Amino acid sequence: MPDNATDTQTFSADLYFATQQKPAFLQDDKLMNEVRSFIAKHKNKRVVLVTSGGTTVPLELNVVRFLDNFSAGMLPRTRGATSAEYFLKQGYAVIFMHRQFSLQPFSRNYSHSTHPFLDFLEIEENSKENKGNDQRQPQITVKPSERAALLSVLRAYKAVQAEGTLLTLTFVTVDDYLFLLREVSRAMGTLGPRAMFYLAAAVSDFFLPRQRMSEHKIQSGKGSLSIEMDQVPKILKPMVADWAVGGFTVSFKLETDQALIIPKARKALQRYGHQIVIGNDLHHRKYRVVLVSPKRSSLLNAHANPDGDLSAEYEESWIEIDSSPSALHKEIEEDIVKELVRRHDEWISRHESQL
Amino acid sequence: MPDNATDTQTFSADLYFATQQKPAFLQDDKLMNEVRSFIAKHKNKRVVLVTSGGTTVPLELNVVRFLDNFSAGMLPRTRGATSAEYFLKQGYAVIFMHRQFSLQPFSRNYSHSTHPFLDFLEIEENSKENKGNDQRQPQITVKPSERAALLSVLRAYKAVQAEGTLLTLTFVTVDDYLFLLREVSRAMGTLGPRAMFYLAAAVSDFFLPRQRMSEHKIQSGKGSLSIEMDQVPKILKPMVADWAVGGFTVSFKLETDQALIIPKARKALQRYGHQIVIGNDLHHRKYRVVLVSPKRSSLLNAHANPDGDLSAEYEESWIEIDSSPSALHKEIEEDIVKELVRRHDEWISRHESQL
Repeated sequence: MPDNATDTQTFSADLYFATQQKPAFLQDDKLMNEVRSFIAKHKNKRVVLVTSGGTTVPLELNVVRFLDNFSAGMLPRTRGATSAEYFLKQGYAVIFMHRQFSLQPFSRNYSHSTHPFLDFLEIEENSKENKGNDQRQPQITVKPSERAALLSVLRAYKAVQAEGTLLTLTFVTVDDYLFLLREVSRAMGTLGPRAMFYLAAAVSDFFLPRQRMSEHKIQSGKGSLSIEMDQVPKILKPMVADWAVGGFTVSFKLETDQALIIPKARKALQRYGHQIVIGNDLHHRKYRVVLVSPKRSSLLNAHANPDGDLSAEYEESWIEIDSSPSALHKEIEEDIVKELVRRHDEWISRHESQL
Repeated sequence: MPDNATDTQTFSADLYFATQQKPAFLQDDKLMNEVRSFIAKHKNKRVVLVTSGGTTVPLELNVVRFLDNFSAGMLPRTRGATSAEYFLKQGYAVIFMHRQFSLQPFSRNYSHSTHPFLDFLEIEENSKENKGNDQRQPQITVKPSERAALLSVLRAYKAVQAEGTLLTLTFVTVDDYLFLLREVSRAMGTLGPRAMFYLAAAVSDFFLPRQRMSEHKIQSGKGSLSIEMDQVPKILKPMVADWAVGGFTVSFKLETDQALIIPKARKALQRYGHQIVIGNDLHHRKYRVVLVSPKRSSLLNAHANPDGDLSAEYEESWIEIDSSPSALHKEIEEDIVKELVRRHDEWISRHESQL
């Protein structure tokens, strides 16, 4: 720890943005101009921001070590990349804001660890098909058993590229994430209710303020290491209230203790005023999630009962898929996205009928 | 922190292995039997263990958060995967022990982030080459500009698969890494001087003993987070002295402060008694490294001067490549591996002449 270590403190979102450093990639307008023209191009569509992957908390200014939420390095976080594909299929324009080097839509189907593409390529030396062409150049072909699946992924990928409906942004640290989220959601504010925010990234709860970071690699050989970190500000509140007013916001809660999921989801909705919390527990997240949302009746009568029984104001609906190996090809994100699109449609109609 | 938190302590390698839990994948003999038959099959070759990627330190038993050394998620660690390819090219059998989901030999050339393979595949609907075949099935082909490079990677990959010269093992946590390294180096001990250990993984310096870990996700909302970690035991010492006697061992030192590299490399050689430390600094590691090793004369006269000037006992040789963009295709690992193979050859002859 550097000598100028100060006490830990509570950072409000305002204090956080005032004291921490804007990442280099946001120091000029280049990136945000790209984002704004993407949004302008798709202003008549529904647009979703999908965040994906874990954020890191660097412990040193010249970063060697960092604290990480579980992510591509630990368990593959497939929720964001998979959902982005289904949103594209549903006609959304997608801003995919993901942890650098984490899985991405389409290529996620051929991760080098789980399904490496080199395994399904074959070399055909002087094959029949090659007759009449340059015989010295062997052909590279795709194994017959992999062709149909690859063709379908490749078609979807090329269609999205041709239509320009996918914009990819990357982050590494929790600072990158928070500053980028603020800028992108402000820019999406122009879309009103047609903007959806699907916040599947695993954001650190704690961070080490720049002012207390060590410049070089923390040296070992001095006994134990002690790290004191501060809470990351809760930015859902300014996001819903100030940055993207009218947007449809979905957040996630991941817990290892199942009993905490619903109470914590309700509290988050009450505190931040957004539309849906998707709760999942670590061990069943690929087969079962719960959507927690305010009851329609309580929406009409918001905050009538701020200290009362939260179960009267919020409702749950479960989405579950077959987890047996024979059902391998179904992905729960398909059903999650369908349900969200349905609710987003309702949200848009309700807002438009109020105009 | 759980209530039964105890004070931090210093773990020797013995205490560490006696008190921490053997990973599930080493609880039975299945994996190690595979390793032993790989070694037996290649007992007349030179065999190298290449470790690669960062280890994690879980902060909870049901892991959501962990401390990470920089790795695939932060900066891509290409040293291990790239070197493994060059060792294979030099006729070594390679045990590649890497962080799960990190880069691997061959497929590393087509990472989905830096060079995604979907971008170089094309769909040919009813192409000329397709005439006479089933016309309804379009062909997937490789862009002409990518063919030669892919063909060369694919040939090397298929040759290695055919000869069975590459065995891949994975780790995630620092516990996985330490237990696996102990078992694999003991098994390689049978190879004597023909075994090389190329320890390029970024191993955590600190860890949180199981006995002090929280069972569930550490809850935020309770102010700041404080983590007290213990030093990971220095296992190079038992590795060199007990587990893999006679093996040729190369370790790495990564520093952000250049001035520390050589003094720390010499100290490590003095302390652990191994053959080479490869020093690199974070910002130039792709273009310049330094090999620090005992002088031949001091080898003949070991420990004659334990408290004296270390520069009299150790020597450095630098390996540097052109870092200009026009020299993009040269990889420094090619030169590092060539130099190590040369020194390994000397090492083997010296040992054999002593028999």
